[in-house]
Amino acid sequence: MKMKTAVLHSIRDVRIEERDIPQPQAGHVLVRIQKVGVCASDVHYFTHGRIGPFVVEAPLVLGHESMGVIEAVGEGVKGFAAGDRVTLEPGSPCRTCEYCKSGRYNLCPEMTFMATPPVNGAFTEYLEWPADFAFKVPDSISDDAAALIEPLAVGIWAARRGQVKSGDTVVVVGAGPIGCTTLQAAKAAGATTLIAIDLEDFRLDLARELGATHTINARHQNAQQVIQDLTSRGLPTSHSGADVVFETAGTLRTCQQSMLLARPGGVVVLVGLPPDPMVTLDLVAAAAREVDIRGLFRYANCYPVALALLEQGRINLDRLVTHRFALPQVQEALTFADEFKQQSMKVMVDVTP
Amino acid sequence: MKMKTAVLHSIRDVRIEERDIPQPQAGHVLVRIQKVGVCASDVHYFTHGRIGPFVVEAPLVLGHESMGVIEAVGEGVKGFAAGDRVTLEPGSPCRTCEYCKSGRYNLCPEMTFMATPPVNGAFTEYLEWPADFAFKVPDSISDDAAALIEPLAVGIWAARRGQVKSGDTVVVVGAGPIGCTTLQAAKAAGATTLIAIDLEDFRLDLARELGATHTINARHQNAQQVIQDLTSRGLPTSHSGADVVFETAGTLRTCQQSMLLARPGGVVVLVGLPPDPMVTLDLVAAAAREVDIRGLFRYANCYPVALALLEQGRINLDRLVTHRFALPQVQEALTFADEFKQQSMKVMVDVTP
Amino acid sequence: MKMKTAVLHSIRDVRIEERDIPQPQAGHVLVRIQKVGVCASDVHYFTHGRIGPFVVEAPLVLGHESMGVIEAVGEGVKGFAAGDRVTLEPGSPCRTCEYCKSGRYNLCPEMTFMATPPVNGAFTEYLEWPADFAFKVPDSISDDAAALIEPLAVGIWAARRGQVKSGDTVVVVGAGPIGCTTLQAAKAAGATTLIAIDLEDFRLDLARELGATHTINARHQNAQQVIQDLTSRGLPTSHSGADVVFETAGTLRTCQQSMLLARPGGVVVLVGLPPDPMVTLDLVAAAAREVDIRGLFRYANCYPVALALLEQGRINLDRLVTHRFALPQVQEALTFADEFKQQSMKVMVDVTP
Amino acid sequence: MKMKTAVLHSIRDVRIEERDIPQPQAGHVLVRIQKVGVCASDVHYFTHGRIGPFVVEAPLVLGHESMGVIEAVGEGVKGFAAGDRVTLEPGSPCRTCEYCKSGRYNLCPEMTFMATPPVNGAFTEYLEWPADFAFKVPDSISDDAAALIEPLAVGIWAARRGQVKSGDTVVVVGAGPIGCTTLQAAKAAGATTLIAIDLEDFRLDLARELGATHTINARHQNAQQVIQDLTSRGLPTSHSGADVVFETAGTLRTCQQSMLLARPGGVVVLVGLPPDPMVTLDLVAAAAREVDIRGLFRYANCYPVALALLEQGRINLDRLVTHRFALPQVQEALTFADEFKQQSMKVMVDVTP
Repeated sequence: MKMKTAVLHSIRDVRIEERDIPQPQAGHVLVRIQKVGVCASDVHYFTHGRIGPFVVEAPLVLGHESMGVIEAVGEGVKGFAAGDRVTLEPGSPCRTCEYCKSGRYNLCPEMTFMATPPVNGAFTEYLEWPADFAFKVPDSISDDAAALIEPLAVGIWAARRGQVKSGDTVVVVGAGPIGCTTLQAAKAAGATTLIAIDLEDFRLDLARELGATHTINARHQNAQQVIQDLTSRGLPTSHSGADVVFETAGTLRTCQQSMLLARPGGVVVLVGLPPDPMVTLDLVAAAAREVDIRGLFRYANCYPVALALLEQGRINLDRLVTHRFALPQVQEALTFADEFKQQSMKVMVDVTP
Repeated sequence: MKMKTAVLHSIRDVRIEERDIPQPQAGHVLVRIQKVGVCASDVHYFTHGRIGPFVVEAPLVLGHESMGVIEAVGEGVKGFAAGDRVTLEPGSPCRTCEYCKSGRYNLCPEMTFMATPPVNGAFTEYLEWPADFAFKVPDSISDDAAALIEPLAVGIWAARRGQVKSGDTVVVVGAGPIGCTTLQAAKAAGATTLIAIDLEDFRLDLARELGATHTINARHQNAQQVIQDLTSRGLPTSHSGADVVFETAGTLRTCQQSMLLARPGGVVVLVGLPPDPMVTLDLVAAAAREVDIRGLFRYANCYPVALALLEQGRINLDRLVTHRFALPQVQEALTFADEFKQQSMKVMVDVTP
Repeated sequence: MKMKTAVLHSIRDVRIEERDIPQPQAGHVLVRIQKVGVCASDVHYFTHGRIGPFVVEAPLVLGHESMGVIEAVGEGVKGFAAGDRVTLEPGSPCRTCEYCKSGRYNLCPEMTFMATPPVNGAFTEYLEWPADFAFKVPDSISDDAAALIEPLAVGIWAARRGQVKSGDTVVVVGAGPIGCTTLQAAKAAGATTLIAIDLEDFRLDLARELGATHTINARHQNAQQVIQDLTSRGLPTSHSGADVVFETAGTLRTCQQSMLLARPGGVVVLVGLPPDPMVTLDLVAAAAREVDIRGLFRYANCYPVALALLEQGRINLDRLVTHRFALPQVQEALTFADEFKQQSMKVMVDVTP
Repeated sequence: MKMKTAVLHSIRDVRIEERDIPQPQAGHVLVRIQKVGVCASDVHYFTHGRIGPFVVEAPLVLGHESMGVIEAVGEGVKGFAAGDRVTLEPGSPCRTCEYCKSGRYNLCPEMTFMATPPVNGAFTEYLEWPADFAFKVPDSISDDAAALIEPLAVGIWAARRGQVKSGDTVVVVGAGPIGCTTLQAAKAAGATTLIAIDLEDFRLDLARELGATHTINARHQNAQQVIQDLTSRGLPTSHSGADVVFETAGTLRTCQQSMLLARPGGVVVLVGLPPDPMVTLDLVAAAAREVDIRGLFRYANCYPVALALLEQGRINLDRLVTHRFALPQVQEALTFADEFKQQSMKVMVDVTP
């Protein structure tokens, strides 16, 4: 029994290969993959062959935003049957270290994460994976949305890291896919004033459709001034600012700016990260005002939350998909996502029709 | 300058009197009252002359769910002008004790709280009050809703005490005014499965309109069984249950039942309290499953949150008002609220047209 | 290869048997047991054959407060070598449920816990156990102390559940072994005023030696009055009370009393539980003052903390051991612990000399 | 009635003047000052005439680490009598803004803080101050220690901001007065491994005396390597590091280094701040490992905690005093503290013998 798999051999070289369909180990499920979203990290491996310390040294299957249908279950697996629609959480931790035991498994030093060398990902027809990192998808959630629970999980984790509360004012810097899931997760967690900043109007329009109460195009507007006006609460200028600022654009400039957009006692969550790790910024402006700076690394325990929010219609992921490719076109999909970054949102690979 | 005031002289004896319109002290505002909701505590003072240790020993003005218009401001008050619509947070704390300094001013031992002996309340044409416990009301919020921010603040505090998070399953026991504000506050804080229990269908219908995803009429249904089925999450029966249970009915039986409706590691928030403080219940069922039991006493810092939620249209308070009386009919309003408790939701006193 | 094991066959019937020495599974270690403390739960199984829903239906090995020396390691085990001294955390959870993934594995519905039917415990010469629930013991920690990390873990968990902070005033009701570990854990977490209550002076003397700043013998003193005086902080009587009250005596009366010993906004942690689950108490006194009631079920992630505290000399467990028996005398040890409960603290079984 | 006051007129120009002894306002106390510690901020105003946005534009009395004896009380003050020894918390907030009401009064935009222009400080014989920011000092606490509660409060707040827990490993970068109070506060909050780094052996010796379990002289040792070895916990190198790192040295280099000393999921608390607000550092190393960066601004609600810790002998402040001056020598005290920063710890001004 063979399956088709898209394999990255070297920079910008993805080939479709035939591989054996795997058998599910004990405690695992075998999934026939249906949808896989293209993430910026996939594009980065495709164009650079590495992300920081993770280097592609052997042929690698990319893709980690996936959903599909259970084909078979391994020994001891309960609660799943062939035909169940599932979404796959792409990281499987060691389960025995202090991080795993204390609920922060995203920081596990022995994490197995799809499409992170040397672990293969989901641009393939069949994938086997631990059953407890597969989640049943209710009928009311579309295939696309089920695949895109992965970037939603990032947004949910960002909102948790920011400890968003009812009535909060949040700023989301960058309205790409992660900005839009973060915005929606913050709204679901109770934020009532949601300000999105971007350079592209089509993204801001979408952000507004998805819940932004205010949008700022930083090409034409002074974001800091607008936010100061929106968040004064009758206090001196020194104390204006948002409760939580989410930096999702991943540039040096937005990272610097974020420090200045939070109110004293507020939080900046660094969801995106600037390309160069050495950053020059006004750290004192944050520290002396007790503005906490919190990064994030993936997420933990967010898939069930994402499913609950989607099922109640409080999040819209379908609107994020702007372009589609089939499995044999993974090379084209990655190339497109790289070249048309500014004109697209989420590129989806339809693995099986 | 005289004003009309409704004064409780003894049990079931409210008289309309003429009193001097007060002058605002330094730091205070004078408010021409427009709307005052009738709370169960007003009714209890009216019918019993006391609530626990608080005894009506001198003529008392009831009413603490109020809004109106600024008539004048005292010395040093900034940010308010005559004509501003405001809602009044009815408790003014000492500001110097350890509770006030640490953000739990609702527990201040020197609290001045409207309509709690010996402090007069809002069934009157003019009231003066500390400016920082008056909050401007945006145009988009109705007068009724502005007055009912007080019971909404209870709901918001309940949701905070329960630490409701995105994706949570909550049970609200009792769908009266407090049940309905708690339900909406829990939804605003991210709860996605919201189960309301009551004995009256009209309340459950309203709860559903306001956000309940499931309703249970405990006259006809076994609430515990239904909730067990709704909350199994694929776990053994021992581990079904809600993340947070809000008891708002204030009866012994519902208080007992609440302990059994939360999942291990969940929370029961006692919003209502049974009439007899000595309660017999299965405390071990809660304790041995790490189900936390948390009461609440009024609220702190909830008015700005309430205003933000209302302004964004995430809460509906107008639907709670079922009956209306004018200021001269306060005696009738309280009598009605007492006698038709089961058929009404919120009774509103329109102080000035 | 045979070993001696003490097996409970029926109520008050423990027999020494020969059993095969087990082989360590993959990921497990084989431990030659040296010390096992006798816990009240062991005594209860011995005298009643059950604890609540857990019924001894087949021969059962008791004992779960254990330490020993690594004899062999299973496949894939890193970081342990034969001869290492280790203490064993007695519960091994499923690692895949929502509780395990979110850091509350003590609530795992599929927990395997030593000496809880049908899982055998540590009154035996050799035991095999998951390596990640074995912890290396530094030389500075005695064998007795290493075994008694289990009841210390309960105390550490209790202090966490109570969120003890620097400068807190805590009351520990009951100065038995669990009371004394809780007291010390609370002190280590920063409590500065530590009030112990008991009926036996020898326990109170020990509590004082271990860190209590005040002791109350409830036979002769009015505990509530004394605590009110010690905790007034210049506030009205209504607001006196401890920040955190730990109920460790497990009686109805102390459970009732605990609700009244916490200040408004304080916490009661129910470490012990009354024998009859239906409890009559003044729940309103707790709820209306925002005194949170929190039970606990075992502990999670406390062993590393316990080892760190012991190694720095901040906890004394050796002083808790008052009586000793050898493995062949387990029947006598359990009988003694049952009959002389009021005159003893911790009974230790020296499995191998 | 006249008193002597040391007044800063311009840079390096402090003059002793006669001023009227103030009368205590309502709610205030009049204190005869006995001891005032010299803080680095006093020295900075003395040598530079400003700190960031705070500019000395009129004659200013420095000094904010003070204690003394109640001389008189204003109207309505309860709980104080002439002769009571008190320590003064130097910041008095507005009590009405959102920060004050929610327990973060240290961030109040209308704060009145001693020795911060234009508010006069404590280098004077008599000072009047709000009664609720005066705290009675038990006999067991020395005058020096009572004055130095101010820098201890910074350390306590730092430990809270870092959420230090029992069993934590902490690193304190810089072992000056604030480093030493932070170290002790962290120990009191449960930290068991306490690593101090400095360039001066006499400071490290003192740190060890006050609770450091390990000290590193960064002139001779590679701090990062030593800490990596001390904190490996059997995990890969990527996951070594402290639970909480406190940067108290206030240099660019230590600020940069701190990001690398915390374990994934740990915290860096910026207690000191580099002189130039624009900082270049590896922000990604922190963010991508979920190392939170938290600054602090003064403290809130820490004085009662400080008093409790001191009274129980868990903190030693007396050892911090290395040099003394009388009130007429304030000019000399400030000059000395500036010139001999590397050879001194705390310089104390004995205002009244």
